[in-house]
Amino acid sequence: MISSKQCVKEIKQSLKLFNKKKKYLLHEPFLDKSDSTQINKCIYSTFVSSVSGYTNIFEKELSKFTGSKYVVAMVTGTAAIEIALKSVGVKKDEEVLIPNANYIASANSTLQIGAIPHFIDIDKSNLGIDINKLSIYLKKITLIKNGKLINKKTKRIISAIMPTHIFGNTCDVLKLLNLTKKFKIKIIEDSSEALGSFYKNKHLGTFGKVGILSFNGNKIMTTGAGGALLTDDKKIFDKALHLSKISRKQNNYWEYDYSQLGHNYRMPGINAALGISQLKKVKKILKIKKKIYNIYTRAFKNSKNISLIKENKNCNSNNWLNSIYISGCNLKIRNRIINELNKKNIFVRPLWKLMHKISYLKKYPKMSISNSIIVEKSLISLPSSTNLKN
Amino acid sequence: MISSKQCVKEIKQSLKLFNKKKKYLLHEPFLDKSDSTQINKCIYSTFVSSVSGYTNIFEKELSKFTGSKYVVAMVTGTAAIEIALKSVGVKKDEEVLIPNANYIASANSTLQIGAIPHFIDIDKSNLGIDINKLSIYLKKITLIKNGKLINKKTKRIISAIMPTHIFGNTCDVLKLLNLTKKFKIKIIEDSSEALGSFYKNKHLGTFGKVGILSFNGNKIMTTGAGGALLTDDKKIFDKALHLSKISRKQNNYWEYDYSQLGHNYRMPGINAALGISQLKKVKKILKIKKKIYNIYTRAFKNSKNISLIKENKNCNSNNWLNSIYISGCNLKIRNRIINELNKKNIFVRPLWKLMHKISYLKKYPKMSISNSIIVEKSLISLPSSTNLKN
Repeated sequence: MISSKQCVKEIKQSLKLFNKKKKYLLHEPFLDKSDSTQINKCIYSTFVSSVSGYTNIFEKELSKFTGSKYVVAMVTGTAAIEIALKSVGVKKDEEVLIPNANYIASANSTLQIGAIPHFIDIDKSNLGIDINKLSIYLKKITLIKNGKLINKKTKRIISAIMPTHIFGNTCDVLKLLNLTKKFKIKIIEDSSEALGSFYKNKHLGTFGKVGILSFNGNKIMTTGAGGALLTDDKKIFDKALHLSKISRKQNNYWEYDYSQLGHNYRMPGINAALGISQLKKVKKILKIKKKIYNIYTRAFKNSKNISLIKENKNCNSNNWLNSIYISGCNLKIRNRIINELNKKNIFVRPLWKLMHKISYLKKYPKMSISNSIIVEKSLISLPSSTNLKN
Repeated sequence: MISSKQCVKEIKQSLKLFNKKKKYLLHEPFLDKSDSTQINKCIYSTFVSSVSGYTNIFEKELSKFTGSKYVVAMVTGTAAIEIALKSVGVKKDEEVLIPNANYIASANSTLQIGAIPHFIDIDKSNLGIDINKLSIYLKKITLIKNGKLINKKTKRIISAIMPTHIFGNTCDVLKLLNLTKKFKIKIIEDSSEALGSFYKNKHLGTFGKVGILSFNGNKIMTTGAGGALLTDDKKIFDKALHLSKISRKQNNYWEYDYSQLGHNYRMPGINAALGISQLKKVKKILKIKKKIYNIYTRAFKNSKNISLIKENKNCNSNNWLNSIYISGCNLKIRNRIINELNKKNIFVRPLWKLMHKISYLKKYPKMSISNSIIVEKSLISLPSSTNLKN
C-alpha cells in the first residue's frame, strides 16, 4: 500500500519548481486591464443584454479560433448541451451514451430533454472513451433496424454519444468517429474543458455533428458563466440559434410569436464582451499552461508512485488541469492526500464522483465500468492556475 | 372606426412634452460610470463566475430593497420561474393558472417542468388577473378533494397560479391572495416587470409564496440577463438555492455529488456586480419613470381616442412601460399605428400575442378570455425610456 505521506511530500516537492505562492490553486481566471476596457465599451454602448451585437462578434471570433463554421453562444455550457441534444434530434426516451467518469452536465441535460443516459467506460491513458471496449459492447447489446441503433435489452433507440474531452485531453477522436458512423449514432463532443486543444491540428469539438465549449470561471478563458455550441451544419445551427432565442419568430421586432417551446439561453452582451477580450489572450494562456504541464512532466519523470497523465500523442492539449495517478491507491488514501494538501493551501481535487454512484443516476443502463473505477480511486488533479508560472 | 392617422398625430404630439430625441425608445438600460467602476472591481477580484461573493451581496441588497426575507439570483427571470414552480412543489401533470395576456416565460417554464398551463382572463383596468371572473370560473369547474383543488373536467390538480404584474401594474393582490387561500392554490407572483412597484407600500412579489424579478436589458434595472426569486419561506429558499446550484451537495469544495436533477442557473458574479451598481440607482430611475407617466397622463387627459392605463389606486407602480388604449380599435388599425410610428423612429409595441393563439399552446385549457381579446386589439405601449426625461 502506498503511503499518503510520501505522495504529499512528492507533490509539495513538485510545486517548488513554480513561482512561490501563498495558495496553489487548481485554476484562476486570467483577467487584466484589457477585460475591463472591453466591458466598459459594452456598458458605454448600453447593449449589455442578449440582443447585443457583442454576442455576434464573440461568436465570429470563436468561429475563427476553432475553425467551426457556426457558433451559438449561450448562458452556460449546460444550456449548450441541452440545445445540442435537441438540435441534432435526440428524442424523448432515446438513449445517449455518456462516459461514466464525467461532469454532471451531460447526464442532467439528457434527462432534461426526457432522454436516457447510458453510461460507458473510459480509457485510463487519456480519460476519453474506451473505443475498443465500446465497440465490443455495442456489437453485443445492439442491432441496427431501419437505420437506427436499437438496444436489444431496453428496445430503445440509442441515438447519440457524448464523448467528454476531459481536462483538455481526448480519445482517438477519428477512431471514435468511424465507430459512430458504423453504429449510426450522432456525436456531440463535450469540449467544455478543451478550448485550445487540437487533435491533428483540428480543434476539439469540430469533429462531431456538434461540439460544446464552456467559459465558466474555472475554464481556460471565462465569460463569468457561458458556453457555446459549434457546428458546421447550417440546419443544426439554425435550429440551435432559434431554440436558444426562445424560438421567437423574427417577423419584426415588436411581434411576440414563438414556433415551439424554446429557451431563454442566449449569452448576454456583457458576458460576450468579456469573452472577446479573453479570447484575444488565449494563445498566451495556452503557452503558460504548456509550461506548467512540462514542469510537472519533469517533476514526476522518475517517480515510482506518481505518474502524470500524458497528452494523447495526436493531441496538442490545452493542459487545462494537470492530473496524476497514484499507484496502489484507494479512495481512502486519495482523500487523505487531498485533505492534507488542501490544509496546506495546495488545492487539489479528485475526479468527479462516477455517474453510476450518484443517487438519481443509479437506475440507468451502463456497461462494465472497470476502468472508471480505477481512475476514480487513483486520480488527483493538481494546481494548474496560470499564476503558477505567470 | 377610429382613424390611425389621428392617433399617430396625437401620440407624436404627446412626445413634444419630452426631451427632443432622434429615436424615442420603449426602454433603455440606465448605465453610467458607477456601473463600470463596480464591474471593474469584480474583474480585479477575479471572482466573475457563479461562486463569486458579488452574487451574495446582490441578493442581500435585493432583500433590503424589496423587503423579501430571502433572495436567489439566477441567470434569467425564466430560470427563476422554473425553479419557483419546482420549489413550491408543482408536479408533473398538475395545472398552473396563467394569464392569457402574458409574456411567454410563464407558459414555457410550466411546460418545462411537465405541468399544464391553464389560461385565465385579465382585467382591462390594471392588466392583472380578473379576480371576480376567476372566482366564478373556479367555483364552476373545480372541487376541493383532500385539500387539493381538482379540475372536474380534466381530473387534474390545479396547484398554482402565476399572476403577472404587467408593465409594473397589478391587480388587487390582497383580494387575489384571499381567493387563492379559499381555493387552496399556491401563488407565484411574476413581478419580472415590477421591480420598484409597491402595493399598499409592500413590494410586489412579496405577497405570494414566491415572487420573481427580471433584470433583462429592457427592465427597470439590468444585469445583462438575470432574474431573482423572492420568498419569506426558509424551506422554499433552501430548495430554490440548492436547485439553482445544480443540487450539488456541499460537504466540501472538492466533492462532486448531487442530490437530484438540478440546474446550472446561479447568477455569475460579473452580472451580479452590475446588479449592485444598478440597484443603487433604482430610486433615481423610478423618479424619472414617474415623471414620464405623469406627462403622458397630462397629454391624454382630454383625448377622445386615447386613454392611458392608470396605476391601480393602491399601487405605486414603477411605470415601467406606459401603455394606452385606442378606442374603437382593431388589430389592423393597431398594427398600422405601430408601423407608422416605428417608421418615424417612435418605437411603440403591442401587447404580446395572446397565449391561446400561439401554435403550441392552443391545446391547453382556458376560460373565456374576452377581456384579453379586447386588450390585445386596443393596447399600444409607448416610448418609456428614462432618456426621454433625463
